[in-house]
Amino acid sequence: MPEATPRNRDYELWVLLDQVATLILNARDQELSQYGTTAMQAGVLFVTTQVGNETTPAEISRWILRKPSSVTGILDRMERAGLIKRTKDLPRRNLVRITLTDRGQKVYKQSLKRGTIRRIMSALSEEECEQLASLLEKLRAEAAKVAGVKHRIPFP
Amino acid sequence: MPEATPRNRDYELWVLLDQVATLILNARDQELSQYGTTAMQAGVLFVTTQVGNETTPAEISRWILRKPSSVTGILDRMERAGLIKRTKDLPRRNLVRITLTDRGQKVYKQSLKRGTIRRIMSALSEEECEQLASLLEKLRAEAAKVAGVKHRIPFP
Repeated sequence: MPEATPRNRDYELWVLLDQVATLILNARDQELSQYGTTAMQAGVLFVTTQVGNETTPAEISRWILRKPSSVTGILDRMERAGLIKRTKDLPRRNLVRITLTDRGQKVYKQSLKRGTIRRIMSALSEEECEQLASLLEKLRAEAAKVAGVKHRIPFP
Repeated sequence: MPEATPRNRDYELWVLLDQVATLILNARDQELSQYGTTAMQAGVLFVTTQVGNETTPAEISRWILRKPSSVTGILDRMERAGLIKRTKDLPRRNLVRITLTDRGQKVYKQSLKRGTIRRIMSALSEEECEQLASLLEKLRAEAAKVAGVKHRIPFP
């Protein structure tokens, strides 16, 4: 008898979670393309606005949970698109600070229109949203442990 | 008075979901690095095993919900790593079929050890897992509509 692939409830739940996250990211990318930006870049604009003058690539990496090398790639593209500036910190010249350009600030404001996110989340009632948030917070705590994340994960 | 950034429950829920998905992906990448592969590549090995001889790049794109150009990049890296072979379909020479190499099959079997996923999901009870799956299915249906996905999304 051929060996059946064992059903794996945990794996299926992960695939489902990943599908939802990917679909929302794709929808958000489509929404933001009219402003010449992406969901990931809008995330960096958001973080830089929240953190202010102290924003460094390492700080962005802590917020968006992507590796420093990925963050460098994202910042390269954003600098070429005229959304951010990198400046060397004067007392500590090996430290790079990130600030938004005028164009970056304009695109940041445009990115606050979040019609896709609102529409997708409207599939859930108020109570279901709270349930989902509570389940995801439990998963986040455990996933952070397993992924070896030592810092507190910042949140909007 | 400075204008406060309006709190946005929907946006926060999305950030939380994206954080969880990213943390699990990072944990899974760490787990799979001992076998010389990544979570995304293991996903392609899984899909190719499920679909069998009919696997094409377009079919992989439908499963993993990444753009055809991203799938091409992933397949390039997997071919260089000796995990897959691309062969031209004889009757329709513009169609590429994907098959696993012997090494690909070995790595696929190793990737079925999913300790990280099991450990992370163990943060939730049986009942909470069911609740989460039901909430995510609602979101997936709406997100697929908003992202303009026309096909049925395949699932393990």
